[in-house]
Amino acid sequence: MDQHYVHGYDGVESLRLHDQASTLEDLLHGDTAYPGGSTILEAGCGVGAQTVALARRNPGVKITCVDVSARSLMTAEAHVAAAGLPRPDFRQADLHALPFSEASFDHVFVCFVLEHLARPARALAELRRVVKPNGTITVIEGDHGSTFFHPDDSDARAVIRCQVDLQRAAGGDALIGRRLFPLLAQSGFDAVRVSPRLVYVDASRPNLAEGFVRKTFTAMIAGIRSPATAANLIDGATFDSGIRALLRTSEADGVFCYTFFKAVGRKA
Amino acid sequence: MDQHYVHGYDGVESLRLHDQASTLEDLLHGDTAYPGGSTILEAGCGVGAQTVALARRNPGVKITCVDVSARSLMTAEAHVAAAGLPRPDFRQADLHALPFSEASFDHVFVCFVLEHLARPARALAELRRVVKPNGTITVIEGDHGSTFFHPDDSDARAVIRCQVDLQRAAGGDALIGRRLFPLLAQSGFDAVRVSPRLVYVDASRPNLAEGFVRKTFTAMIAGIRSPATAANLIDGATFDSGIRALLRTSEADGVFCYTFFKAVGRKA
Repeated sequence: MDQHYVHGYDGVESLRLHDQASTLEDLLHGDTAYPGGSTILEAGCGVGAQTVALARRNPGVKITCVDVSARSLMTAEAHVAAAGLPRPDFRQADLHALPFSEASFDHVFVCFVLEHLARPARALAELRRVVKPNGTITVIEGDHGSTFFHPDDSDARAVIRCQVDLQRAAGGDALIGRRLFPLLAQSGFDAVRVSPRLVYVDASRPNLAEGFVRKTFTAMIAGIRSPATAANLIDGATFDSGIRALLRTSEADGVFCYTFFKAVGRKA
Repeated sequence: MDQHYVHGYDGVESLRLHDQASTLEDLLHGDTAYPGGSTILEAGCGVGAQTVALARRNPGVKITCVDVSARSLMTAEAHVAAAGLPRPDFRQADLHALPFSEASFDHVFVCFVLEHLARPARALAELRRVVKPNGTITVIEGDHGSTFFHPDDSDARAVIRCQVDLQRAAGGDALIGRRLFPLLAQSGFDAVRVSPRLVYVDASRPNLAEGFVRKTFTAMIAGIRSPATAANLIDGATFDSGIRALLRTSEADGVFCYTFFKAVGRKA
């Protein structure tokens, strides 16, 4: 599965994910609070970008992290150690066939993972299996189709569509955020509650202009230049124009909007 | 200017605006609170949909409402009376040339108006003229480009684009919400602060599915069938398919998102 992860696995990507996590941590994780003593499964921890936030905000819980990539798990372990946090239990495993018996965890946490899966409902069913009755699942995903900005620009919209198309070609869905409600409901979770988290950026919020628009979102899109042009989704000049237009939205008269979705469901 | 108001002036439209106002009132106006005794100018009050909310939430203020349409002012007066609220001072006037001397009002309030103006910055400059130093302007606008939904549908996106195109042809901008920050800043207001208000609708929020997705947004778009087809922006079959697809998003597994923007600026 490693080769299908559209964002890649190199060091720059790992750094980008950490930049993203620290800028957005309050917005995304501010209301993720588990009772002390809970057992938490973080499914698809990747390089640990969200693990650090989860562990820091929930000091009294026991976290188990699984990921399909052994390399990512090693990076995640190093990040958690560097943050001076207790070491979670790291396990290499496939989300669709977890090495845990039914009702093993009080709660499950999944962040920026379902977007990469061809059958997210199947993964959700497996996650539901390992959570205890009355336990919850928390899912956080972005939605690239939620992006809009000023000045509007057709090349900027085109480079974002390249990311959506590449992710779809790899079996994923970069527009998954908007459909978390039906996904969780159809996977058997009850009392599903979705809350959108709109990241709004203008010149009065320079940290977000730098940390989110430039270093997170545009850096992510800029990273797909080679696969996008190789797949003939776009020509190089249009791609570069689109990236410039995205950066342009972080200037003094620019505005940028992106919406993340956070869903919580309960296993009856 | 009446003939350029893209939403029309008939009774159905007036009812729609009131449905919209009551469904969204908390989201849009919950934090609009003026000190007792303040003088407030509502610029472009239309049929009074927002006037009622403004007056009800700010019982101790003195409101002056202006609109370019005498007919709208009469409807607004009737609505405020029907709500049992004190009668504002209604004045027929052009936003761009107000019959008030400089620094006449403590605060100015403008809701769903700038989107219809060819030169919103000129109107903002005029509004800034009549507000007192240290007074504020509050601007609320939508942004049809912020709309996304599940199931996604190209005809649904096409009918929304028709609305954007018609409004642009009439001199307006249905995407104005995203650029309130630069507009207010460039018009000389200080300490501009914009807060987006995302309306998120899924099956767990049936009142919004009915009141916003069906009765407000889709009803508004459905209302432009004749001008959109007459202008050859779309054929009738595609239009009807788009409307069905928009309504489809309000079903049990559908999701609908729309973002309003509220901006507050100060006159130094």
